[in-house]
Amino acid sequence: MGQPIRITVWNEFVHEKRDEEIRRVYPDGIHSVIADLFKDRDGYTVRTATLDEPAHGLTAEVLESTDVLFWWGHIAHDKVADEVVDAVVNRVLTGMGLVVLHSGHFSKPFKKLMGTTCNLKWREADDNERLWVVNPSHPIAKGIGQYIELDREEMYGEFFDIPTPDETVFISWFKGGEVFRSGCTFRRGLGKIFYFRPGHEAFPTYRNPEIQTVLLNAANWAAPEDMAPLAFGRVEPHQK
Amino acid sequence: MGQPIRITVWNEFVHEKRDEEIRRVYPDGIHSVIADLFKDRDGYTVRTATLDEPAHGLTAEVLESTDVLFWWGHIAHDKVADEVVDAVVNRVLTGMGLVVLHSGHFSKPFKKLMGTTCNLKWREADDNERLWVVNPSHPIAKGIGQYIELDREEMYGEFFDIPTPDETVFISWFKGGEVFRSGCTFRRGLGKIFYFRPGHEAFPTYRNPEIQTVLLNAANWAAPEDMAPLAFGRVEPHQK
Amino acid sequence: MGQPIRITVWNEFVHEKRDEEIRRVYPDGIHSVIADLFKDRDGYTVRTATLDEPAHGLTAEVLESTDVLFWWGHIAHDKVADEVVDAVVNRVLTGMGLVVLHSGHFSKPFKKLMGTTCNLKWREADDNERLWVVNPSHPIAKGIGQYIELDREEMYGEFFDIPTPDETVFISWFKGGEVFRSGCTFRRGLGKIFYFRPGHEAFPTYRNPEIQTVLLNAANWAAPEDMAPLAFGRVEPHQK
Amino acid sequence: MGQPIRITVWNEFVHEKRDEEIRRVYPDGIHSVIADLFKDRDGYTVRTATLDEPAHGLTAEVLESTDVLFWWGHIAHDKVADEVVDAVVNRVLTGMGLVVLHSGHFSKPFKKLMGTTCNLKWREADDNERLWVVNPSHPIAKGIGQYIELDREEMYGEFFDIPTPDETVFISWFKGGEVFRSGCTFRRGLGKIFYFRPGHEAFPTYRNPEIQTVLLNAANWAAPEDMAPLAFGRVEPHQK
Repeated sequence: MGQPIRITVWNEFVHEKRDEEIRRVYPDGIHSVIADLFKDRDGYTVRTATLDEPAHGLTAEVLESTDVLFWWGHIAHDKVADEVVDAVVNRVLTGMGLVVLHSGHFSKPFKKLMGTTCNLKWREADDNERLWVVNPSHPIAKGIGQYIELDREEMYGEFFDIPTPDETVFISWFKGGEVFRSGCTFRRGLGKIFYFRPGHEAFPTYRNPEIQTVLLNAANWAAPEDMAPLAFGRVEPHQK
Repeated sequence: MGQPIRITVWNEFVHEKRDEEIRRVYPDGIHSVIADLFKDRDGYTVRTATLDEPAHGLTAEVLESTDVLFWWGHIAHDKVADEVVDAVVNRVLTGMGLVVLHSGHFSKPFKKLMGTTCNLKWREADDNERLWVVNPSHPIAKGIGQYIELDREEMYGEFFDIPTPDETVFISWFKGGEVFRSGCTFRRGLGKIFYFRPGHEAFPTYRNPEIQTVLLNAANWAAPEDMAPLAFGRVEPHQK
Repeated sequence: MGQPIRITVWNEFVHEKRDEEIRRVYPDGIHSVIADLFKDRDGYTVRTATLDEPAHGLTAEVLESTDVLFWWGHIAHDKVADEVVDAVVNRVLTGMGLVVLHSGHFSKPFKKLMGTTCNLKWREADDNERLWVVNPSHPIAKGIGQYIELDREEMYGEFFDIPTPDETVFISWFKGGEVFRSGCTFRRGLGKIFYFRPGHEAFPTYRNPEIQTVLLNAANWAAPEDMAPLAFGRVEPHQK
Repeated sequence: MGQPIRITVWNEFVHEKRDEEIRRVYPDGIHSVIADLFKDRDGYTVRTATLDEPAHGLTAEVLESTDVLFWWGHIAHDKVADEVVDAVVNRVLTGMGLVVLHSGHFSKPFKKLMGTTCNLKWREADDNERLWVVNPSHPIAKGIGQYIELDREEMYGEFFDIPTPDETVFISWFKGGEVFRSGCTFRRGLGKIFYFRPGHEAFPTYRNPEIQTVLLNAANWAAPEDMAPLAFGRVEPHQK
């Protein structure tokens, strides 16, 4: 058995404090429900970090000792300090995995790593959502059947303005007439990134066992391998 | 202006002869409606070929002088002779474009070029279909808006057992709860392949102006460039 | 700890019996050197199979109980029975991993799964080869530095007539002036395929520790996940 | 015949003014040699722009009326104003093609669009370079044979820290022992990006007829199609 995978779950943690209805769904914040997945599970250590902490809880020490960072943000993207954003992006490029959740599509780190607007269509209705598996042998789809059904979710629709994903694992169907590339992988530098669509704050999506399976799979997939640091710059010719 | 693009439209042409209802939709066969798109249009020459002709209309001379082959088949896949299948596959590998339509997903040439079962889910209901553009700068999506709407179509659903497409241009939404990668490109040898989902024989889909735009775009995209023949085999080391 | 990964190493085993010089490099056959990698290693069971055995050693029982099949062939590709080829291909499509080595690029199962000629340029000189890692966070590159250096190898050069790989892990440089996509992944059905270029029979390439690391990584990567069988055919609409 | 493709060639234009040796190769600047390719050619209009001009020659009007922007920069990347960089990036996202040349890998617009360091290995020796075509049916390889040979060029070597390209058209071999993904395409928003490696300022690379063929092909490929503007934001459910 190797070293445990060190998880940090970041959440802006704003909705849950402001809004009674959201608090009912996630009384200790979305981050705590996600962190609970890894707590007491062999092979993981887990921490949380939130906007209000110094450096939003993402100090150099925390980032350096994180293998996979989960990111949930929505209404406070612009409150995240640019130095922290740069530190997160640089840490991804040197190998940290990043799992970007739902409205995190508009977070500063994701947009910087993608280089596009990351914009999309949306609707806060009670659409139901079906996430179809379109890459069934992918480790992130492990243990999932034909699809995941969510009775109530916010809708996100195409065109989703991201670079062509390296791999598309899930495509969502929404009752109201839209589709969405809902599970997408990207490699940037030494880091692996997984974007996963579901997770509106008003619905208990992160308590769904299949969604939890995907989050666990994503952590395993995004965790850094034993990799040589990247080497750049002037080199001598090959002598044999 | 370069040489015209030489189109051949192949259709098994069985449903239209057997079934009064289908004949009402395509009195001269699906192939003739697709061929009409290119007839009298600058920059193209067009022919048709059908199952009942000698060599199914796809002799060596025809294939050699075809730049882009359209393929519609459904209930007679197994009637297509293996020698013709091999000739089509080889001609694709040396540069002919291939546009595989709807139930052609199960045609012998497509299955040989893909190496997979090409199986899928389906339902012959009156689902309506929305083909969302997920690669808006792709030449095959030229002139198409956010999506194409089809009021009535057969449903095809994921998982579609194809290799990862080189590019996914359209993803379909179906009223009944499914999604499908509806416009997919693949390169095989020197040939370009486009699979395009819509086109059930009972609906006038190939008369839809937006579907016709896609067929024209696909022909332009799949037509061979000025390419050097591929060179293989033993080579001497580089001397400078 | 999960179930062990069940490895089968297939080798045509012809060169080693016919040719004294090759036998000196691989006295018990290439397959036995590769199998030794997994023998006595926790988490694996290993078998070998060769051309001369009944069903080439690849009976339905063997294939059904294989998680990852390694394949080395060269001068006897056409001796492999088509029924066995079909059984291997079908087993890949239902989830068995396949690691195709060196001249196996021209084996029947690989060509069927690719749908292309799989042709290339070659030279049996004493080129030296450098396999550069171009996908450093890929699990197959785990533990490998900037590149792998092989003092003597046969040269394979582009254009390599394969479909666009899902992922390119290694690109080779050859002294004589060529490059080659040397480590390529493909998904077909539920199966994962890795093509790995090095391994000419006259050189002790499979005794190289870094090459062995890649073979181990490839086995881990290609082993099937816990996957639902694929479901196809007629489906009812979604009722909620 | 459609509208002409409107080309703008941007060059920092510093080496050529400072250094007698470079000036001998490109007396009027690299930009003027590239612009000459399109001048007096049917189907194109062409302009140049350089660092010293107001807004570096890239005002809102110029960008708005540019279909494809070529970019050459090297020692003055940091002199390019961030507002101009943002304007270039935004214009790419709304459809302008971008052809990034050689040391432009480290330019601010390319790095922002990629989201990675874009770092690499290099050597300013007289390596010779062979650019092998690995995507022979790609429109950017049109009219090119098996490879392009350059007798003298600066070396760039892997690992090249870019996102996985959408398509890899060329892979370079360098005498000194390196390989490089030399011709890579990326789609970002509505814009198409081609990175093309060759073009050290001290060598007359842009006068090479095959390199010129690639530049012309790249302009044709990167020019925007007739595309609907992207639509984002809140949408109503589909009503039928």
